[in-house]
Amino acid sequence: MSGNPFREGMLADSPTDPCALIIFGGTGDLARRKLFPCLMHLAREGRLSDKTVFLCVSRRPLDETSFRNDVIESARKFAPGSVPDEEFAKSFAARIFTVSDDTSFANLSKQLADLASLGGPRNHLFYLSIPPTGYAPTIHGLGQAGLANPQTGAWSRIIIEKPFGRDLKSARELNRAAAEVFQEEQIYRIDHYLGKETVQNILVLRLANTLFEPVWNHHYVDHVQITAAESLGVEERAQYYEESGALRDMIQNHLLQILAMIAMERPASLAAEAIRDEKRKVLEAVRPLEDISSLAVRAHYAAGAVTGKAVPGYLEENGVSKNSRTETFSALKLHIDNWRWTGVPFYLRTGKRLPKRVTEVAIVFRKVPHTVFAQSPVDKLDQNVLAIRIQPNEGISLKFEAKLPGHALHVRPVDMDFRYGTSFGGRISDAYERLMLDAMIGDQTLFARRDSVEEGWRIVQPVLNYWSSDKSEPLPQYVAGSWGPAEADAMLAADGRRWRKL
Amino acid sequence: MSGNPFREGMLADSPTDPCALIIFGGTGDLARRKLFPCLMHLAREGRLSDKTVFLCVSRRPLDETSFRNDVIESARKFAPGSVPDEEFAKSFAARIFTVSDDTSFANLSKQLADLASLGGPRNHLFYLSIPPTGYAPTIHGLGQAGLANPQTGAWSRIIIEKPFGRDLKSARELNRAAAEVFQEEQIYRIDHYLGKETVQNILVLRLANTLFEPVWNHHYVDHVQITAAESLGVEERAQYYEESGALRDMIQNHLLQILAMIAMERPASLAAEAIRDEKRKVLEAVRPLEDISSLAVRAHYAAGAVTGKAVPGYLEENGVSKNSRTETFSALKLHIDNWRWTGVPFYLRTGKRLPKRVTEVAIVFRKVPHTVFAQSPVDKLDQNVLAIRIQPNEGISLKFEAKLPGHALHVRPVDMDFRYGTSFGGRISDAYERLMLDAMIGDQTLFARRDSVEEGWRIVQPVLNYWSSDKSEPLPQYVAGSWGPAEADAMLAADGRRWRKL
Repeated sequence: MSGNPFREGMLADSPTDPCALIIFGGTGDLARRKLFPCLMHLAREGRLSDKTVFLCVSRRPLDETSFRNDVIESARKFAPGSVPDEEFAKSFAARIFTVSDDTSFANLSKQLADLASLGGPRNHLFYLSIPPTGYAPTIHGLGQAGLANPQTGAWSRIIIEKPFGRDLKSARELNRAAAEVFQEEQIYRIDHYLGKETVQNILVLRLANTLFEPVWNHHYVDHVQITAAESLGVEERAQYYEESGALRDMIQNHLLQILAMIAMERPASLAAEAIRDEKRKVLEAVRPLEDISSLAVRAHYAAGAVTGKAVPGYLEENGVSKNSRTETFSALKLHIDNWRWTGVPFYLRTGKRLPKRVTEVAIVFRKVPHTVFAQSPVDKLDQNVLAIRIQPNEGISLKFEAKLPGHALHVRPVDMDFRYGTSFGGRISDAYERLMLDAMIGDQTLFARRDSVEEGWRIVQPVLNYWSSDKSEPLPQYVAGSWGPAEADAMLAADGRRWRKL
Repeated sequence: MSGNPFREGMLADSPTDPCALIIFGGTGDLARRKLFPCLMHLAREGRLSDKTVFLCVSRRPLDETSFRNDVIESARKFAPGSVPDEEFAKSFAARIFTVSDDTSFANLSKQLADLASLGGPRNHLFYLSIPPTGYAPTIHGLGQAGLANPQTGAWSRIIIEKPFGRDLKSARELNRAAAEVFQEEQIYRIDHYLGKETVQNILVLRLANTLFEPVWNHHYVDHVQITAAESLGVEERAQYYEESGALRDMIQNHLLQILAMIAMERPASLAAEAIRDEKRKVLEAVRPLEDISSLAVRAHYAAGAVTGKAVPGYLEENGVSKNSRTETFSALKLHIDNWRWTGVPFYLRTGKRLPKRVTEVAIVFRKVPHTVFAQSPVDKLDQNVLAIRIQPNEGISLKFEAKLPGHALHVRPVDMDFRYGTSFGGRISDAYERLMLDAMIGDQTLFARRDSVEEGWRIVQPVLNYWSSDKSEPLPQYVAGSWGPAEADAMLAADGRRWRKL
């Protein structure tokens, strides 16, 4: 194994292998807003080899000079912290080259060969930042051009952006197409949630502490809530979103990957495959969804107000069909059928136009079995909650009951808090920095493996089927700026539970 | 049962029964600095009946007017917050009366009878705030004067200050003397640590939360540290302290009572007797100390500096014998021989002239059984610690391992924090307020029962014996402003452990 970020300290000093990072769709939003600013930051931190270069593949021929300026300007606009000074930015941009894309990949192949013959990097990292319909043809083209097979002593890898398929069938097809050209160990499926500090911290929390493991099971956990709330609406992405929806866009990938990190058994080691094996096992143990109407909720937002600003409903958004049945909110109730989690529901929810942007995992512990506090019957005592905030204000808090100061004995819930920002100071690095670095190092730990992607689709497929067949009623709605539809509250209320107020 | 503060809410509104609080030693430091300011505060909060009066018993006749002024001035000086305005202070002071003490208690008896005949309170709460040699004679005198037996429909109670005895024999004698005059349910032995908010919160923490109980035992706890550090020296109390020392002054009572709150089994109810039964049981289970030299440490402070200010050694203090062998620091290692705590040492330490004033209980959990972090072997990972800070900055914190933000996987200990002050705001009431109020209500929960006092002495008696017989070497010393003698560090080092840095 060439490297493992969980081998503590290994990465601290060494820059990565020199490589050519070839970005398909390198002129798009993701590249300009995220990838290049992250790369610039990594370069400034000395993480990248000085020989690493960036090739932007685009449909039409691009003027290199003006594109380089565009990259710097975008970085200044979207990630000001990544542009330290003009000189550095210019020297970084000088490593960006443009390639015009023809279907035979001849230009690209030639440019990479020229690069190598001039002493440039022979390692190739392809990055598919293009619409999903382009994935299979591009992979096929790379294969045809012989670019999937590394030269002796070099490597060739491919990063595939989300969405990875739009259902179980298409995901399997894409995996098959990729596997015809690349080995699984060459394929890096991005799930940027896995690159987030707090998600990675889940492993440390579970494996480096004595205290959590004893209560990390159905004996002590009542249920788990995983929430990913956005305050934004569909914005400029209506075309993509209409074909996707909240379940595909957030739950199938991000929320199920987080669920796997929380619920998996302890891996025998921190090797990427050991962790990915455990994730597969726990996703496989997710009970197939039946009786969908009681286990899944969908809705889209009606006009309302978010943080005081009036916003239109989903059906009024540009690019959205007036008859759209695409959900902007989705909630699922899952069970994991294994010894650790039997009987513990995992409630997942995500939505656009909710009151704020916040992602958290809440482990809600069982009620106390008995109370001696006369005025605090068991049902009045708040349950202990371990909340892992993934964004923003990354941190961990523990809700427990304490005595309200004073002569009488009043019991009140309080929070013990830990915040990454105040504890460690400094900047929390962007998930994409971490993930691009890992791909350059050759560590797949934080990328989704073929099996877990397909398990994710396997889990949500019955819901997709049910929803596409259920055309009888209008889709439930929720007012923009609220915490989702009444149906989502009702799903938990039926179990005697409530969503957390975030 | 007339009342129980753990019946949540009961006390919130109602004032206490009208009573005469008769303070023996009412002109002393404790009364002027603590008792009267606390009473004034309780009066202002409406906790005391308007009919409650205060009788100060003193050797010599006292001028009532000048004493009343003295009480107000002392309150202003030592507890400014308790004196809201002149008018209130004067009306409070008008309820203070002085009685000169004769050995027949005739004056006192007459004054109480006069009070009752004029419609004043018929309930009597005696408070022994006098040197310990006066306890037995005063109790005897009260008995002789018939004051221990309440009139029909009224009550008579007695609060006894510490120290309660100076060894097992004298404590038993004093208990016997008290029992000849008062019933156990009339006797309130003060341990002001039990009146502290955070000590009371230990019960809530343990009984109102699901999370702590599963790990509150030898399977998960490595050891427990209880520290009561003072930065002050012996100050004006040399005469008392020379006869006492750290073990008697702090460990036999306060630290063992705290240990009992931490280590006891869950009581079946919050009735005073249910809690006191559990405390007795766990103190009885403390293993008798043998091989004292490896389980107990004593020392006194040499000249040094505390918070930057040079201070003399204990032997140079006024009123201290140049040959004194009185310890100002003491540490004990105890074992509790029961199912819950087998094999878990409880380390207790207390000292004067330590770097700061701080009292805390630290539950130190076992190391993780195995680590997957290559550069963090089990012995390098910090153990989880639940720290309960009793004073100052009352609160609770949990130390656990987290991932240091960044590309490499560095594991670092961090703290999750809860502070009473910032969470609840407002003032934390003084322990004496709570305890005097409880005595007026008739709740003995936070007072030491006869059996637990004697168990406390039973535990420390072998150490007292050993120390009084061991005159061979000079007493170990520690530099004022340090965390105690090398011997205390060595005691833990022998077990592969360390005292916490506070």
